[in-house]
Amino acid sequence: MVNNDDQFKKVISHAKEYGYVFPSSEIYDGLSAVYDYAQNGVELKKNIRDYWWKAMVQMHDNIVGIDAAIFMHPTTWKASGHVDAFNDPLIDNKDSKKRYRADVLVEDYCAKIEAKIDKEVEKAAKRFGDAFNKQEFITTNQRVVDYQAKIESILSRLGKSLENEDLADVKALIEELEIADPLTGSRNWTEVKQFNLMFGTKIGASAEHSTDLYLRPETAQGIFVNFLNVQKTGRMKIPFGIAQTGKAFRNEIVARQFIFRMREFEQMEMQFFIKPGTQQEWYDYWKETRLKWHQSLGLGDENYRFHNHEKLAHYADAACDIEFKFPFGFKELEGIHSRTDFDLSQHEKYSGKKLQYFDPEENKSYVPYVLETSIGLDRMFLAVFSNSLVEEELDNNTTRTVLKLPAVLAPFKAAVLPLVKKDGLPEIAKDIVNQLKWDFNVDYDEKDAVGRRYRRQDANGTPFCITVDHETLEDQTVTIRHRDTMEQKRVKIDELRDLIKQEVDMKHWLMKM
Amino acid sequence: MVNNDDQFKKVISHAKEYGYVFPSSEIYDGLSAVYDYAQNGVELKKNIRDYWWKAMVQMHDNIVGIDAAIFMHPTTWKASGHVDAFNDPLIDNKDSKKRYRADVLVEDYCAKIEAKIDKEVEKAAKRFGDAFNKQEFITTNQRVVDYQAKIESILSRLGKSLENEDLADVKALIEELEIADPLTGSRNWTEVKQFNLMFGTKIGASAEHSTDLYLRPETAQGIFVNFLNVQKTGRMKIPFGIAQTGKAFRNEIVARQFIFRMREFEQMEMQFFIKPGTQQEWYDYWKETRLKWHQSLGLGDENYRFHNHEKLAHYADAACDIEFKFPFGFKELEGIHSRTDFDLSQHEKYSGKKLQYFDPEENKSYVPYVLETSIGLDRMFLAVFSNSLVEEELDNNTTRTVLKLPAVLAPFKAAVLPLVKKDGLPEIAKDIVNQLKWDFNVDYDEKDAVGRRYRRQDANGTPFCITVDHETLEDQTVTIRHRDTMEQKRVKIDELRDLIKQEVDMKHWLMKM
Repeated sequence: MVNNDDQFKKVISHAKEYGYVFPSSEIYDGLSAVYDYAQNGVELKKNIRDYWWKAMVQMHDNIVGIDAAIFMHPTTWKASGHVDAFNDPLIDNKDSKKRYRADVLVEDYCAKIEAKIDKEVEKAAKRFGDAFNKQEFITTNQRVVDYQAKIESILSRLGKSLENEDLADVKALIEELEIADPLTGSRNWTEVKQFNLMFGTKIGASAEHSTDLYLRPETAQGIFVNFLNVQKTGRMKIPFGIAQTGKAFRNEIVARQFIFRMREFEQMEMQFFIKPGTQQEWYDYWKETRLKWHQSLGLGDENYRFHNHEKLAHYADAACDIEFKFPFGFKELEGIHSRTDFDLSQHEKYSGKKLQYFDPEENKSYVPYVLETSIGLDRMFLAVFSNSLVEEELDNNTTRTVLKLPAVLAPFKAAVLPLVKKDGLPEIAKDIVNQLKWDFNVDYDEKDAVGRRYRRQDANGTPFCITVDHETLEDQTVTIRHRDTMEQKRVKIDELRDLIKQEVDMKHWLMKM
Repeated sequence: MVNNDDQFKKVISHAKEYGYVFPSSEIYDGLSAVYDYAQNGVELKKNIRDYWWKAMVQMHDNIVGIDAAIFMHPTTWKASGHVDAFNDPLIDNKDSKKRYRADVLVEDYCAKIEAKIDKEVEKAAKRFGDAFNKQEFITTNQRVVDYQAKIESILSRLGKSLENEDLADVKALIEELEIADPLTGSRNWTEVKQFNLMFGTKIGASAEHSTDLYLRPETAQGIFVNFLNVQKTGRMKIPFGIAQTGKAFRNEIVARQFIFRMREFEQMEMQFFIKPGTQQEWYDYWKETRLKWHQSLGLGDENYRFHNHEKLAHYADAACDIEFKFPFGFKELEGIHSRTDFDLSQHEKYSGKKLQYFDPEENKSYVPYVLETSIGLDRMFLAVFSNSLVEEELDNNTTRTVLKLPAVLAPFKAAVLPLVKKDGLPEIAKDIVNQLKWDFNVDYDEKDAVGRRYRRQDANGTPFCITVDHETLEDQTVTIRHRDTMEQKRVKIDELRDLIKQEVDMKHWLMKM
């Protein structure tokens, strides 16, 4: 059985060691929940972004992009509801002066009960051996049943209190459960207060002359405020979509899990504007289409599942997540939301401008409904990266670490290696790099034995190694080695470009959708 | 003679009308000096970014990229000098309560004298007709000579006062020149004060629990703090470069000229790490290489010039700008700076970490010197867009507006037009779109007469129009029309892909470097 914690630690250290993700400002001991993409990470991130953009914008005649600024007029966030309702419930410990998310304290308490269930299951599995039926045990063992009931009751009460903004009851719950400050054990808590997650700043020269701004907490509103400008200048007809990728910022109190939840992150969002009443049809369409996009990358269909939201946000009439199996379990990777006309209507109200579409078929104007697909680029990066990192047992009883990135997303498409550093082989290898680099990102590596270089490129995620040897001098052939199968075959130098192109071209991957 | 102001106004309105650039949050009456890239603008911007990235990173074996976060540890900005020295001198008018950049008030005063010179020249030109020699007039006419001397004396004093941080003398200068508030005419001024241009924000939950952060005012520092991590994990050998594109933020008091000077903007920067003593050689290399990159786009070699900095920033031992001829004159488009070891040494000092490179050839460690190339992506967008927008007189005495974007950068590479909306022509046109869209961004347009559609695509910058007519039904040929020459030729549908690819592929454009 794989230990998931260990796997996650491996992911994080591999990401640093192989130049994918560094802690931000590491020479200054880092900045909490902020990371920098390193020399390979920037290429993987860019390739994911391009793959999404190509699938969403270039391949859809009725979807266009925009790139709105991070700074927006502050009334935008009144209209969207973020000023009033984009809050986390926080609680301070009076002794330690530490601050926590009240809901997370309760959830962590439940996670401890969950751990007890796991322990019971583990013990029983040992006791019963092959005869052990986990599902049956969970539903019949009284201790486990009691634990589960307790978790359910706690979370249900927490959910209701938060929904009703009954923060006093959230505190009462923490006190009843005797939850203590995890660092000090103190139970001396303040009241629970709401804390807005938007980062503020001021534009203009001084307190007197300045305007309060927010760093956008989501990219979606940049699409809504531009809706009519795009529709009119782009002569778009409903149904049509506007796509955008860009940074968003949330002052998360408990940011964690590496790049899964960061304070600065990048979204890839698409808002699809539709006729009211057609939302169910488009909701189904986009659920299917987005899942196919994910599956086209070949990370394993079993690693995705839909999670339907039972509790809907104020703006939605249907919503689900595409969850992915991260090293720490199934978690949200992408959201698909039927947002009704909530956003456009709110902006109509706050701006006093009509945000309506004249439908020539219906011969009337209306505020369109919106179907949203929203994916975290950093999460997608983590999904691809963590899923691709494997340790393989080889036939000769050694292991190799290999980063089986989808070739279309790999930072380097090929590495060119002269077998030895003499006899003119480096010169030929460099010639090949110079030929291929017009089409692909290509690495050159001449240091260490060739076996070691193969391992290095495997761990780096490079799909192809091209080795120049003495035979090359005679017949202009090289070996091309495939990262995943480790198979090598001998090909003409002239064939390399097309061979690689076939495997790495976005076109070929998108055709799998 | 072209009126540049008019041309600039045309650029701004064309950018809005054709979906390139919208004022930010326009439904809320905009946000000063912030703009959004619209459905065509986002593609042009992306193509410029990709063209730079491919030329700098993919084509150079010794340059890699990174993507550092906008949030950085605040000590970064102490080390870089931005906390102490990234200031503008501001002055308030006590009556109007309006705030101005003191240096800009003085410069605007000089611009008025400049306008008087222009008037004298204009009058004289009318008087003397063909016999008028502008250069001679300017150097001999006493009034003009006096005006020029005055401007020179004012700007020289301003420059010295600012350099010596003698803000009292800046105020004295404003008073001596009797400069008045341009809005109210009042001369009742406060003292001049320095104002820091960085946007601040707070990370964490409250005043007690938060840390002051800045939005980065430049992307360069993200490269410096990651220098050693990239060098070690990427096994880079000096000389090598680290490239980055990303947002930066400056709280400019007087932001103006459309997207030329925005409060939120995007940079494309490359820091090249070199052996101390080799900076002159690399300075020359990068001046030449970057100019060639610009020239490869074919905007006209005469529109670029170098401007060497006489007054150097504290970190530089040589610096120049590549200036471009914008509608408002030659202005900085890109900077090339020899930054010495200033930045890395400062980060060593503030972080206490060694930021040195062990040079195996020299067998010793040193802090590398840095050669920087820094270009504003938004400025590059404005350069390309404004240069490409032309009105052409046609043979039939009509004019056409055409956006002659370099084909490699154009948002749509082709538009497919059925001659009429019947007889199966739209179906064939859509088939062609579906074939081509795997490789290119392709538009489909069936509305209005075909001549009008040509004009629309011309104004939109689309390099090729492909027209499907009744002949297509018989022989599978279409006409392909070139935006710039308006020439049409008849080709097989099967040939379209290669024909277009030849003209729009980055590879072919980069080969011109």
